[in-house]
Amino acid sequence: MLRFFLLLLLLGAPAALPAPRHRRGAALPTGTYLTRYLRQQVDHFGFDEDLTFQQRYLIADQYWRRDNGPILFYTGNEGDITWFCNNTGFMWDVAEELNAMLVFAEHRYYGESLPFGNESFSDSKHLNYLTSEQALADFAVLIEYLKTTTAGARYSPVIAIGGSYGGMLAAWFRMKYPHVVVGALAASAPIWQFGDLVPCGTYFSIVTNDFRKSGTGCAESIRNSWNAINNLSLTDAGLQWLSNTFLLCSPLKSPQDAVLMKNWLSETWVNLAMVNYPYKADFLQPLPAWPIQEACKFLKDPSLPDKLLLQNVFQAVNLYYNYSGAVSCLDMSETATKNLGQMGWYYQACTEMVMPMCTDGVNDMFEPQKWDFDVLSEECYRLWRVRPRPSWILSMYGGKNISSHSNIIFSNGGLDPWSAGGVTQNISDSLVAIVIPDGAHHLDLRSRNPLDPKSVQQARALEICYMKQWIKEARHSH
Amino acid sequence: MLRFFLLLLLLGAPAALPAPRHRRGAALPTGTYLTRYLRQQVDHFGFDEDLTFQQRYLIADQYWRRDNGPILFYTGNEGDITWFCNNTGFMWDVAEELNAMLVFAEHRYYGESLPFGNESFSDSKHLNYLTSEQALADFAVLIEYLKTTTAGARYSPVIAIGGSYGGMLAAWFRMKYPHVVVGALAASAPIWQFGDLVPCGTYFSIVTNDFRKSGTGCAESIRNSWNAINNLSLTDAGLQWLSNTFLLCSPLKSPQDAVLMKNWLSETWVNLAMVNYPYKADFLQPLPAWPIQEACKFLKDPSLPDKLLLQNVFQAVNLYYNYSGAVSCLDMSETATKNLGQMGWYYQACTEMVMPMCTDGVNDMFEPQKWDFDVLSEECYRLWRVRPRPSWILSMYGGKNISSHSNIIFSNGGLDPWSAGGVTQNISDSLVAIVIPDGAHHLDLRSRNPLDPKSVQQARALEICYMKQWIKEARHSH
Repeated sequence: MLRFFLLLLLLGAPAALPAPRHRRGAALPTGTYLTRYLRQQVDHFGFDEDLTFQQRYLIADQYWRRDNGPILFYTGNEGDITWFCNNTGFMWDVAEELNAMLVFAEHRYYGESLPFGNESFSDSKHLNYLTSEQALADFAVLIEYLKTTTAGARYSPVIAIGGSYGGMLAAWFRMKYPHVVVGALAASAPIWQFGDLVPCGTYFSIVTNDFRKSGTGCAESIRNSWNAINNLSLTDAGLQWLSNTFLLCSPLKSPQDAVLMKNWLSETWVNLAMVNYPYKADFLQPLPAWPIQEACKFLKDPSLPDKLLLQNVFQAVNLYYNYSGAVSCLDMSETATKNLGQMGWYYQACTEMVMPMCTDGVNDMFEPQKWDFDVLSEECYRLWRVRPRPSWILSMYGGKNISSHSNIIFSNGGLDPWSAGGVTQNISDSLVAIVIPDGAHHLDLRSRNPLDPKSVQQARALEICYMKQWIKEARHSH
Repeated sequence: MLRFFLLLLLLGAPAALPAPRHRRGAALPTGTYLTRYLRQQVDHFGFDEDLTFQQRYLIADQYWRRDNGPILFYTGNEGDITWFCNNTGFMWDVAEELNAMLVFAEHRYYGESLPFGNESFSDSKHLNYLTSEQALADFAVLIEYLKTTTAGARYSPVIAIGGSYGGMLAAWFRMKYPHVVVGALAASAPIWQFGDLVPCGTYFSIVTNDFRKSGTGCAESIRNSWNAINNLSLTDAGLQWLSNTFLLCSPLKSPQDAVLMKNWLSETWVNLAMVNYPYKADFLQPLPAWPIQEACKFLKDPSLPDKLLLQNVFQAVNLYYNYSGAVSCLDMSETATKNLGQMGWYYQACTEMVMPMCTDGVNDMFEPQKWDFDVLSEECYRLWRVRPRPSWILSMYGGKNISSHSNIIFSNGGLDPWSAGGVTQNISDSLVAIVIPDGAHHLDLRSRNPLDPKSVQQARALEICYMKQWIKEARHSH
């Protein structure tokens, strides 16, 4: 866990490294699916290492028209695929309408799809095959396998669907393997959160706006809380008070621990922004509808003295970690679901997925912190013996120069901080952006809900319309 | 050299493995160029190995309009890049008209661009980074480097040009990195000579047709020659006679050597088909115009007794190896220019580039030989400790399903056996096929020549027209 915090620390803001995350709500009951495995090359791009591993995938064909009906293919991201399967209600909701087969493919190095079993994360040698390119190759091989071995699937048009990093993979999959998928729905996919494609501060200013709009004094209270913590962390009594007030499972012992605490709080606010959904939902912990509004009810007065201010901050934080009221202490090391593979994502953030993030304390409510690549690089070398290559992803996937591709929907929620790195304007007739003003992180991929705002209903309708169009075009061209 | 022959042997036909080859004629005087080097990652697709190597490239900017004029980028293939540079006259011929910079990028593991110096071919570990994907990544990184470091090149539209395997790379480069190159001219690129995309026998039937059309009795004489050799190789005296008659530097010692001789002859016929150019040209050896017609002048009577038939065959072979008359003996181990990197290509043919080839002796003039993947696989394992993965290239580059790409010209010569695996019909408005009925292997990439048939003149004009269109479109979209 030390590693975890150190990594967070150096990136200045907790959410900088853990990247696009899925925190979807209570899974509505989805249909049944089969769990299967396909033997994949550990290294698609070299022939010296001829090892293989079992990639897990889930398959549901109860709605599928066996006469080359379409396949909706979830491009699994940094977590257990069953969790994505159970939390991507949209695919289940449209399966019948499209007579589609659903396939959820697990990303290598996550869930059960570990190329070297327990040794997978042991060193840089074993981690060497954890890249987006290898993952896309797995997907391509899996789809070719399914199409050649499943009766009636030979000419099935396949549509890639993913959210967050999975959305990036869906978009990149269509870009790199257009012969395999006829189109892609890339939900909340920050494919431009790289290099200098977007300002590094937008992400946190969106978080801040979410809080600003959700209650008077709310963002300002959080902005003021950092100094309050700094003041208290100067003395042992202050650290003790912080530990008690925030019900911390492990008490703070030094000002350094207070830095960890601030990172933990920052990540909490970021997570709340990502999952600021319009209805009660069940994450790691259950949350009420519009949780930021609820949290902001505790944060109306930014001018309170330090201890009173922080007691209010605790109430807000407690809402996120202890809405059920069943938690006896708050564990700073657990901010997200265990279904996400942190080790794997941290390695990816230390290699390909270098997403510059920064805060300035003016346009956002966080302590100012510049983006510092060198510090990241040193830490990555210390942790994994690898150096990040920040320009590689741009060379590989084209940065903003993607207009020659086709059939990709980029959907983004206006409330989602990850929209900062997303495609929010149409690039061409067939590279379209859908913005959901009231949406947080890939709300559109969640199951239908009576409390869905009109904007997400329309977004889904449009997504389905495009998918039908792709399917139709594929039939014609076949 | 033993390896070489064994590899040829098991593939049944000499040209099966050495793949698309460049045998261009006398280099017309080209302009001057600078030789440069760029430090590249040995492994673009993994982060454990952080080694780098120097990739060589050649650059000529004397015709370049420094205000974002276009860049013609030769995607180097299996050989020394200076040889390609000096033998791709087409690029030099059009540089001024297009105000283009010329760049010739050397393919890793060929020429001077050896990732591990002399150790590069020592074992499968060192050879592990010899793949088309790594080569394309080198090209992408090189172009980004040039555009960011060359004043006035930032918005230069780049066009990929290549012939043979280099043509495959040019096409694949546009498919995989459309953000880097606005279009590609893929000359004589057999991108479909994989899997079961085309019949395995077409290649050799085209060779045969070239001979059939070039003189009465010609193909039939060659078809009959195999049995004549078989008959003679049964006795030591016969082997001796063959060695003497064919001026072999190393006499045949066994019937097994006669098999090598037949492979050598087959490769000779194949090479003649590739370089059956309409004018005198200078290859490894100089050749007259329409060399097959010249060779066929010796092969008019297929019904001659064995020795007389083979004496004629020798005359034809001697034309290829000894047109200058300066050679004292024929070396069966040298059929092609030394500028090609045989070791590297054999490794590639043993990993990604599995091109099924076969003969039946009916539709072609060769001894029948089935395509046998298992034998190839065993031999590759024996030689390099690697196993070919014949379906990977299809998964990676899409096989025949490439219609969603754009701006690729596939040019093929009607006389070129490699057109068997080429794209010879338009796929879409911007994936166009140009067929040059009188052309051998990428005649269009050669320098203008007064004896050029009208068909190649028109092909080049059309290619230039498309390139201008791409350049114009790129300017508009920028």
